Amino acid sequence: MRMTTLLTKTAKTAPAEADSANAKFLLQGGFVRQEAAGIYSWLPLGLRVLRNVERIIREEMDALGSQEILMPALHPKEPWVTTGRWDNVDILFKVLSQTKKEYALGASHEEIVTPLVGSFIRSYTDLPVSVYQIQTKFRDELRAKSGILRGREFQMKDMYSFHRTQEDLDAFYQKTLEAYLSVYRRCGVDAKVVEASGGIFTEKKSHEFQVITPAGEDRILACSECTFAQNSEISSLTETDPCPNCGKTLTITKGIEAGNIFDLGTKYSEPFKIEFTDEDGTRKAVLMGCYGIGVSRLVGTVVEASHDDRGIIWPKSIAPYAVHLVSLSSKDPAINERVMTASESLVDELKEAGIEVFWDDRTGVSAGEKFADADLLGIPLRIVISEKALAQGGAEWKLRAGGDARIVPVEGVAEEIAAWVEEK
Amino acid sequence: MRMTTLLTKTAKTAPAEADSANAKFLLQGGFVRQEAAGIYSWLPLGLRVLRNVERIIREEMDALGSQEILMPALHPKEPWVTTGRWDNVDILFKVLSQTKKEYALGASHEEIVTPLVGSFIRSYTDLPVSVYQIQTKFRDELRAKSGILRGREFQMKDMYSFHRTQEDLDAFYQKTLEAYLSVYRRCGVDAKVVEASGGIFTEKKSHEFQVITPAGEDRILACSECTFAQNSEISSLTETDPCPNCGKTLTITKGIEAGNIFDLGTKYSEPFKIEFTDEDGTRKAVLMGCYGIGVSRLVGTVVEASHDDRGIIWPKSIAPYAVHLVSLSSKDPAINERVMTASESLVDELKEAGIEVFWDDRTGVSAGEKFADADLLGIPLRIVISEKALAQGGAEWKLRAGGDARIVPVEGVAEEIAAWVEEK
Repeated sequence: MRMTTLLTKTAKTAPAEADSANAKFLLQGGFVRQEAAGIYSWLPLGLRVLRNVERIIREEMDALGSQEILMPALHPKEPWVTTGRWDNVDILFKVLSQTKKEYALGASHEEIVTPLVGSFIRSYTDLPVSVYQIQTKFRDELRAKSGILRGREFQMKDMYSFHRTQEDLDAFYQKTLEAYLSVYRRCGVDAKVVEASGGIFTEKKSHEFQVITPAGEDRILACSECTFAQNSEISSLTETDPCPNCGKTLTITKGIEAGNIFDLGTKYSEPFKIEFTDEDGTRKAVLMGCYGIGVSRLVGTVVEASHDDRGIIWPKSIAPYAVHLVSLSSKDPAINERVMTASESLVDELKEAGIEVFWDDRTGVSAGEKFADADLLGIPLRIVISEKALAQGGAEWKLRAGGDARIVPVEGVAEEIAAWVEEK
Repeated sequence: MRMTTLLTKTAKTAPAEADSANAKFLLQGGFVRQEAAGIYSWLPLGLRVLRNVERIIREEMDALGSQEILMPALHPKEPWVTTGRWDNVDILFKVLSQTKKEYALGASHEEIVTPLVGSFIRSYTDLPVSVYQIQTKFRDELRAKSGILRGREFQMKDMYSFHRTQEDLDAFYQKTLEAYLSVYRRCGVDAKVVEASGGIFTEKKSHEFQVITPAGEDRILACSECTFAQNSEISSLTETDPCPNCGKTLTITKGIEAGNIFDLGTKYSEPFKIEFTDEDGTRKAVLMGCYGIGVSRLVGTVVEASHDDRGIIWPKSIAPYAVHLVSLSSKDPAINERVMTASESLVDELKEAGIEVFWDDRTGVSAGEKFADADLLGIPLRIVISEKALAQGGAEWKLRAGGDARIVPVEGVAEEIAAWVEEK
């Protein structure tokens, strides 16, 4: 993608309303645009990141054997009345049609998915089964805040599983917990699993995934030695107590909730009468679990956990592009032509290797401005082709994550870049 | 995908409310599920078709140089007031938040995209530019009807282009018209371009794409000889008139509208004051075009245009799977084992060739029931492995679109299938 063709332009400064690092850099870099408080458009660079995160999540959910579906955002009122959540969920947007029919905008999909999957369950041989979707959610938050972390409209992956026995549900729950940790790892952040309250979903067990970062809004009580961690909201312990697990020191750190999983038991299968015939002929209520990752929120979480004062530092796995080629133009037309010809050859060579480059092909823009944009946009590998680099027989290679710049010979640079891109 | 693992099951009969071929077969086959009038969930098989159509559309829009973005469904009221459409568009769903803020649910995105793209346009060098999205639309239809053809919530591809001159807009409009014809062709249906009224979008020129089928709800006045075609709604001609183009006979046929494109002129750039500085320093309003394909509607349109009385006949390009393997079980365990072993080998061989097979691995289901399901689901190539076929040294090969069944030798059948799948 040539920068001179790209729809968006970076802004010199972040908008005044940016209340967090993710809002600041994503808005300033032109990844997203705010349409209203808590409501964003995803622009070309941001959408590429979102799609990369979606792809990772999809691969992990498919590997669990879950089947992808797509449920609507507009929900009839009746199933929300059946579960008692029509009146009890205050963040539920409600819509009245011309024909005076009431709908909810899906804040979650238990009311839709339970009868849906239930309609295909007759006997224990139909269990277990699990479905997921990557879809738009709506929540009427009193205060939207923290950029794309707490929005009124956002992208979510929600998965629902249906089981014959508690043991089977427990096993799937544990497999999903591990798949979630794999999602965060692959997206370049480390998450801690903490016990949490079930909120509006369940009174049974639930776990949150907390990405530890000082920008976090949740306070996590974690053991300095073992894996014990609890959300301080529901913990009866404090920082002065010994770890109940190993006796060592508990400390408070801050985290961003980046996913949660719930054992729903029969909370939803009972009101919808979703039962199966067991081997012995008896009818039993299906056990359910639900598992959510805010996909757009995860993009924001990565920015919170991976940036410096100049901009974003994207992990290669979800970066909009792996390679940012900066061509430094010169006032001397002959030099300019050499720089642009060398740049174009590199773009073509990498294209043949299946690598699309983000190319700053702008002329009349200073080196300082180009480097500042590269730091802001946060693409992991920056390659500079300039008069100076060419005079040294090569191109400048620099990682956004840190380390010194070095000159690599122009011959073979495409292969070297391709090898680096493929590296895990 | 093993049929015994698949979430969905086919139904013996179509639901009573199915008012069209697409509703009948898509519901009965378990491609979609109706959640409320005009509101559907996409189940695993249906979602695969929808994604295939999306992929084709995305490839064609990318080839036009359009950049993909994703705008929200929840729109602030203000821009809809600016264009005068807050009060004039009767199918606009309106939402009131807890904090008494009003939103529209996006029925179209001119109100969002015009200021969005406009914020990046300064001079003529920033033009032309075009963006598109594949996103969920909401329309408060008085009557939802014809299955997924006219829904209250549906998937749409909407593209918007921004130009310096009418000539440039005209050229892009024409390129898009051809890209649209390519989309329909690749989805296995033939569409006719007809002049149409601009509806709620524009008073300037617009074209509709009509898929000709007796199930259509639009009446198209088309010349029997040349390319002349008009929507009879806006035509001043009737069936008895000669073609104004070539003088030959005009006939009325029925069509399903499967897309439309509009020259918007300055209808939206003027109220939002989206201007550019031209080469001579003057400020001018940007010219706009908009281009829509109902993605989910197109899936329904294909079913209307391509089915028989037994079920759907999917074009290979968008079929949920290219190959439907039917294993006929036997009461003799030895034969059963031979059938299942041969089936499993074929599935594995095709998997290695990158082809995922839809495998009817059910036992205790009659051949008749399995063939009826295969006809209903409409996967293009049916391969039967049975006692009878194995006795003849092969597997039975039959195309859903028609033609006789034939026995192909088990040796080499995987290669033959792979070659057929790759064929355009």
